[in-house]
Amino acid sequence: MSKGLLIVLSGPSGVGKGTVCTALRNRERIDNLVYSVSATTRQPRLGEEEGVNYFYKSREQFLDMIENDQLLEHAEYVGNCYGTPREFVEQTINQGKDIILEIEVQGALQVKKTFPQGVFIFLLPPSLDELKDRIKNRGTENDTVIDHRMSVAEEEINMLENYDYAVVNDEIDRACKRIEAIVMAEHCKIPKK
Amino acid sequence: MSKGLLIVLSGPSGVGKGTVCTALRNRERIDNLVYSVSATTRQPRLGEEEGVNYFYKSREQFLDMIENDQLLEHAEYVGNCYGTPREFVEQTINQGKDIILEIEVQGALQVKKTFPQGVFIFLLPPSLDELKDRIKNRGTENDTVIDHRMSVAEEEINMLENYDYAVVNDEIDRACKRIEAIVMAEHCKIPKK
Repeated sequence: MSKGLLIVLSGPSGVGKGTVCTALRNRERIDNLVYSVSATTRQPRLGEEEGVNYFYKSREQFLDMIENDQLLEHAEYVGNCYGTPREFVEQTINQGKDIILEIEVQGALQVKKTFPQGVFIFLLPPSLDELKDRIKNRGTENDTVIDHRMSVAEEEINMLENYDYAVVNDEIDRACKRIEAIVMAEHCKIPKK
Repeated sequence: MSKGLLIVLSGPSGVGKGTVCTALRNRERIDNLVYSVSATTRQPRLGEEEGVNYFYKSREQFLDMIENDQLLEHAEYVGNCYGTPREFVEQTINQGKDIILEIEVQGALQVKKTFPQGVFIFLLPPSLDELKDRIKNRGTENDTVIDHRMSVAEEEINMLENYDYAVVNDEIDRACKRIEAIVMAEHCKIPKK
């Protein structure tokens, strides 16, 4: 049996990674796709659930996971730690199922070192102004955080060339269709020797 | 403006390249896609039209086109010549539109030399037995021609590794969906330096 695909969906904060991932999940157009759940030290936002959106950890627990090599990638982002539990990812692709990781740009580059054969998708905002509006409208951050996120986002967009595909999140359904097409196309790819 | 994609749909005789191409055309799910029309010395089959299915040429006219470098590729196949008029292909992609070439395996490999950046799709039969049935059911060929086509087809399937994608033609709608996904994904690809 051939291994499943490791799909990384990344992009700047505020671009809508989470929203697109949830929409993909609800559309159910990709067979045999599993969603990875990250560990984080950040506080749950309203409506988020343990084990569904994230595994919420204390900083001490998180450092233990790093120490024991239980994270495939981890990154500190605006004061919080995020990481991908390694074992679940490896089990899933070894079972021939695809897994999608919705992660920050720093983390994606770490995963690429371990899994260069992964499918790396960068979600782009239609424009930087649009991105700023989205971060503001999220309404959970103050001005200093917004400005910091914007400068981080601009740096992150420069990392685009490390990715395989760019998907513009102009409209959620269209972004989902593009991602579904990428996954289908990747399954048709002839492996290069 | 960026150039359009040159998409090559190839595969063994009898696999259903023509049928899939016609279905793609009728589905109209790919924007800005133009269909290349080949030149051939073979006789029109029932229902085929000049300038729609092929440009029908005498052997002499065909040799003149080769002489004048007017063909992007040409191949002799089971006693007939097939070729792709070059100018139309180049004009189309320079206008930023995609063009699809439905051609034989020999010809596809020639196009790859001129356009290595093309998207090369190999249409596969679900099995070799299935392929033999399809060639037989076409009903226009005798047993010697069928046996010859089968041995050519087996050799051609060995050329798979020169292609980018393999699409199994198990069911026409599914094959079309896969090709549509490949074209959409290729438009999201980040160019490698």
